[in-house]
Amino acid sequence: MRDLFHEELESITADQLKMTALVRQAINSASTALLTADLQLAEKVIADDQAIDNIQQNLDERTINIMARQQPVASDLRRLVSSLRISADLERMGDLAHHIAKLARMRYPNSAVPGELFEVITEMGTAASSILEKMAVVLEFRDTNRALEIERDDDDMDKLQRKLIGILLSPSWVHTVESAVDMAFASRYYERFSDHAVSIAQRVYYTETGEFAPRG
Amino acid sequence: MRDLFHEELESITADQLKMTALVRQAINSASTALLTADLQLAEKVIADDQAIDNIQQNLDERTINIMARQQPVASDLRRLVSSLRISADLERMGDLAHHIAKLARMRYPNSAVPGELFEVITEMGTAASSILEKMAVVLEFRDTNRALEIERDDDDMDKLQRKLIGILLSPSWVHTVESAVDMAFASRYYERFSDHAVSIAQRVYYTETGEFAPRG
Repeated sequence: MRDLFHEELESITADQLKMTALVRQAINSASTALLTADLQLAEKVIADDQAIDNIQQNLDERTINIMARQQPVASDLRRLVSSLRISADLERMGDLAHHIAKLARMRYPNSAVPGELFEVITEMGTAASSILEKMAVVLEFRDTNRALEIERDDDDMDKLQRKLIGILLSPSWVHTVESAVDMAFASRYYERFSDHAVSIAQRVYYTETGEFAPRG
Repeated sequence: MRDLFHEELESITADQLKMTALVRQAINSASTALLTADLQLAEKVIADDQAIDNIQQNLDERTINIMARQQPVASDLRRLVSSLRISADLERMGDLAHHIAKLARMRYPNSAVPGELFEVITEMGTAASSILEKMAVVLEFRDTNRALEIERDDDDMDKLQRKLIGILLSPSWVHTVESAVDMAFASRYYERFSDHAVSIAQRVYYTETGEFAPRG
């Protein structure tokens, strides 16, 4: 029974990694689509979101079945509950990439990103992608050091959002209110994306150590 | 054993209702604070958010303990998993009320809401409050008809958000970019608040009927 249980945990991790890879592809493509006004790429992110949702539904079904069959207690039960929450975070991260892609599509053939914000949006996209790269390591190897790093990376993401809002609100902003609202929403999507990564990192940290991660 | 289990389910529902009442108080006060630039009320919402988080943590601990002790299967297990998700949604709704209160505090002593948006923000606040009133009935009486009503109410909330964004982007907008960004974020918080209520309603619908709620 125990061996089967651990095999099942590994198969849950495998699916979480599959979701992480798809979410990373989604956020990378969404960022590129937003920065380069690439309609085809935006459409692809929007269409591919269903695949992430499907893995989550399937994974949650399996996780609940494992709970019912194995009747785990203590740390095994907590691990399964935690994995339900992790898949919900991953699914939401996919939604946020999808929202960014929709912004790109909405303004096509124009670019949604004014020149002044090109750099900061590029940085937010790069930060999101690098957070996901670490998150894959956290999920695969239950790496608590990397989990703490993600909290610090999230602080950087918050700084990038403040920088972006600062540019929008500066007297030198010459673009439309529409463009400001678009970019404020884009920054919010990146910031929430990063928050969900933190919440996944914190769950792994807690499952591994039995303690809450200290806030960076 | 069965009786104890049902008593425990009832105590979970009681806590969910307690959270719902606190979230409703939070969103009502946050809306008033935003509309009337009431700093004290905004501070209260911000401080009280911790109480909602505390109930959630305690409730989730208890729910996981019930899983471990009672080893439920089939629909009982699904009901417990669903209640973990419901408390997460409620906690997030509390956060969103807290975000609205922070907007009020940030612009104090000014009002964050320009005159042109007073009506639509009032409507969004009223809609959020009325959705929560229905949600309490859905949670207490497992009322699937009301659950479907919440989906329709969410469509109305989306319409209010589009109306607000339309006003921000109209050529007659005379206020600052900062004010437009504030109000865009406020509308997003209300819209997400309503989404979480839908997700709770859908979970209850699914638990009661075994089927996914048709999208209104």
